[in-house]
Amino acid sequence: MSGSKSCARLQGVLLQQLLDSVDSILFDCDGVIWRGDQVIPGAPQVINLLKQHGKRVFFLTNNSTKTRRMYADKMSTLGFDVTEQEVFGTAYGCAVFLQTACGLQGQKVFLMGSQAMRQELETVGIQQTGVGPDHVSGGPGDWANVPLDPEVKAVVVGFDQDFSYMKLNRALQYLIQKDCLFVGTNRDTRLPLEGGRAVPTGCLLQAVETAAQRQAQTVGKPSPFMFDCLASQFGVERERCLMVGDRLDTDILLGSNCGLKTLLTLTGVSTLEDVAGHEESGCAERRRMVPDFYVESIADLLPA
Amino acid sequence: MSGSKSCARLQGVLLQQLLDSVDSILFDCDGVIWRGDQVIPGAPQVINLLKQHGKRVFFLTNNSTKTRRMYADKMSTLGFDVTEQEVFGTAYGCAVFLQTACGLQGQKVFLMGSQAMRQELETVGIQQTGVGPDHVSGGPGDWANVPLDPEVKAVVVGFDQDFSYMKLNRALQYLIQKDCLFVGTNRDTRLPLEGGRAVPTGCLLQAVETAAQRQAQTVGKPSPFMFDCLASQFGVERERCLMVGDRLDTDILLGSNCGLKTLLTLTGVSTLEDVAGHEESGCAERRRMVPDFYVESIADLLPA
Repeated sequence: MSGSKSCARLQGVLLQQLLDSVDSILFDCDGVIWRGDQVIPGAPQVINLLKQHGKRVFFLTNNSTKTRRMYADKMSTLGFDVTEQEVFGTAYGCAVFLQTACGLQGQKVFLMGSQAMRQELETVGIQQTGVGPDHVSGGPGDWANVPLDPEVKAVVVGFDQDFSYMKLNRALQYLIQKDCLFVGTNRDTRLPLEGGRAVPTGCLLQAVETAAQRQAQTVGKPSPFMFDCLASQFGVERERCLMVGDRLDTDILLGSNCGLKTLLTLTGVSTLEDVAGHEESGCAERRRMVPDFYVESIADLLPA
Repeated sequence: MSGSKSCARLQGVLLQQLLDSVDSILFDCDGVIWRGDQVIPGAPQVINLLKQHGKRVFFLTNNSTKTRRMYADKMSTLGFDVTEQEVFGTAYGCAVFLQTACGLQGQKVFLMGSQAMRQELETVGIQQTGVGPDHVSGGPGDWANVPLDPEVKAVVVGFDQDFSYMKLNRALQYLIQKDCLFVGTNRDTRLPLEGGRAVPTGCLLQAVETAAQRQAQTVGKPSPFMFDCLASQFGVERERCLMVGDRLDTDILLGSNCGLKTLLTLTGVSTLEDVAGHEESGCAERRRMVPDFYVESIADLLPA
């Protein structure tokens, strides 16, 4: 079904066939089930009905500002019947990555990120320094010789509303040490909001990468890490799994990379023109961002 | 002389011939005549003797943290005989660019930069908003709707030690408006200091560019703007002009792009291995970064 790479509108018989062919459905959050604090109309019913009909439902978000617990609480408030075990955000994903892939349990990291990331790290036994404001003082000589914590084994960059020159500088000073690991949550450069507005997000990671002249390993989509966690934990069969998202460069690319069926919803970032651009590019890499199907909104899944 | 692109050590007869063949000599500052606040030994004597022997000497720096006046004062303290008219820094260069190339005299810009940039802008009649700290409050909805100054015609990004998430966000909100101009001082990502240390600089511009999904026009080397200003103001003949710098990707590339003779000094960022890498690359663009000559230090010019 995903072989031909020509994106079809998902409705009627096609919709029924697709849902029959999958056991697990993965949803992105921002732009798919909500926009900011506004739920997408019909989304809670769709999620709850899918679960009532025996589908396993998971949430896979690059947003690093909430713990699993915070996501489950928000979802519950908005009418979704979801447990925190079903939510894979990059705050949690990053903690698991540092613990399992980097072997940093019981160690310390320099964290440019939210209190939520700090909580998820602490839950798996990783200490941090760096969360909160870090204002500048002195001049270049002082900045280059800023005191570093000798226990820090990695620089970890997520969304950080306290991002500052001094933090960027401190990250650089750690990363000049070649044995310091470097991990980021995600690369999507900005978070789209209602009415075409947006705020900066993943560009913070790029600023650190540019300063340090090093590339971070990332945990968020399209990296397969969080999907692999979820798949092994819940025994998910890739061929019987659907990824639903609003971004071609994260959600749909992740789905293609992991061998999942893919569905684009038009309530977020990417458009059908974006799809056509990739489809007609003749570039194999860009064609991986063409979804199998699209819907106007996930409410279109309701009839099935 | 610059045709063959094989970098020769400048000494003896070659040095004498080169100096005889030029009227004007352009020096970069950081890594060439000083490192931080430490003067390169012999540099003041070289500069002062060149002037005494009738050469015109100019300083061309991408560093945006000082006004021309501040540079002249610093140079005077370090023993250089220099007037502020001979110094072209990007704080001044940016002011001239906004005035002449963008026609913003009497207008206002959003400035992420130093007090020195503010002064240079005000000197040419350009008002600013944005200099100084801008701490975060609220959440994404507030950030996307942050109050903007309707008089702002351009976002201008230089080195800003008060760089913060809120400033990055404010720049993005201005730049979402398609008619807002976008100008940066320079792209060199970090400022090298003594002992292999460095602090972040030009990567701030890249963070704004990434967030805004737009590219800034830049004023600093290797952009020809500041050289063109200087050349027209002082009637400099390109064929009889030498560019001396420590960076291949800014100083030497500027020299090549403008048809100047080029001299690398090894007291700063770039090394002879970097030169060899470009030379052997077989890539025309990289070969433009191969200097005509090199010296260990500009003190090597003293014998002539």
